[in-house]
Amino acid sequence: MHYPLSLQKVIEYFKKLPGVGNKSAERFAFQLLDWDKTQLKEMGELLHMLKDKIALCAECGSLTEERQCRFCTEERQASGKLCVIGSPKDVFAIEKTREYRGLYHVLGGLLSPMEGLGPEKLTIPKLIERIRAHQIEELIIAVDSTLEGDATALFLKRELEPLNINITRLAFGIPMGSSLDYVDGGTLARALMGRDRV
Amino acid sequence: MHYPLSLQKVIEYFKKLPGVGNKSAERFAFQLLDWDKTQLKEMGELLHMLKDKIALCAECGSLTEERQCRFCTEERQASGKLCVIGSPKDVFAIEKTREYRGLYHVLGGLLSPMEGLGPEKLTIPKLIERIRAHQIEELIIAVDSTLEGDATALFLKRELEPLNINITRLAFGIPMGSSLDYVDGGTLARALMGRDRV
Repeated sequence: MHYPLSLQKVIEYFKKLPGVGNKSAERFAFQLLDWDKTQLKEMGELLHMLKDKIALCAECGSLTEERQCRFCTEERQASGKLCVIGSPKDVFAIEKTREYRGLYHVLGGLLSPMEGLGPEKLTIPKLIERIRAHQIEELIIAVDSTLEGDATALFLKRELEPLNINITRLAFGIPMGSSLDYVDGGTLARALMGRDRV
Repeated sequence: MHYPLSLQKVIEYFKKLPGVGNKSAERFAFQLLDWDKTQLKEMGELLHMLKDKIALCAECGSLTEERQCRFCTEERQASGKLCVIGSPKDVFAIEKTREYRGLYHVLGGLLSPMEGLGPEKLTIPKLIERIRAHQIEELIIAVDSTLEGDATALFLKRELEPLNINITRLAFGIPMGSSLDYVDGGTLARALMGRDRV
């Protein structure tokens, strides 16, 4: 309503964040007023510089703050594995598992005719170039289990078949720690199809 | 985990906001990377300057960006009404109703023995001074309907009784648009006690 102008502007910016409505944005902004000046100044500078400091690696497309991307190392190249993901964020989700030590390749999106995202928008030529250059043996497609993810995986499979490498995709099944009662039918069906000897 | 340093710092700051956990903070931070540089720079500057631009009015204690507080006008003084609230934020909640055009007085908190907030921490001497100076006829206590709010209202009533003014408090009752099924017993009891002719 009649908030001081700078507070109102901060609220408008907070509202741009995912899942943040008017009420939350207001609570966030008022909370800022309780912070120390030094904290606000540091946060302000961080945001001001964020895009100058963080860039996309020209090779793999993941986020990097240093000159040399931490994920494009010779050690990871030697693994012969390359993991294809939709967005830079996914790198960190996979790194957290500590189960993977190979290269990454960020597609920059997933195929989505609805949003006009066709294969020409994805970094597929670069992907093919890297598979050849690094003698990749296994390509792991780590995309969402959504319509867009399925379309992207299928497209990649067809496109990369001539390269004669192993193409795998993340397993589908029951999430760890969940009870069968709460698992949806589609997931349960995929878990049955993918059943394995114990 | 291994986020670039400035991104990690931004995540830590977001986690300080009310109701924001690790996952939300990460989503917020990654969302920022999709913003334009100019937006980030403006948001950064806003935060950087926020506390320099916004001050508390020396008279009423509400937030103000201009030299002259918008709520301490002669027109509002002439109303003879003064609304006592806990924090600067509450001013805007009441202003939004468009039902009140009097003065405000921010206590700077509510009485809370648990958090060590006694009457000496509240701006009560200034409140008494203003009631006298502006010939206030009605004092509206607009505090939360919590233990702290009740204690504060009771304390104010006793403290200000000698001044011989009308002291009122916001009505308690059923929130607008809510069904009786969903109203708690305490609220329903207060609504019954406060029943009025239609």
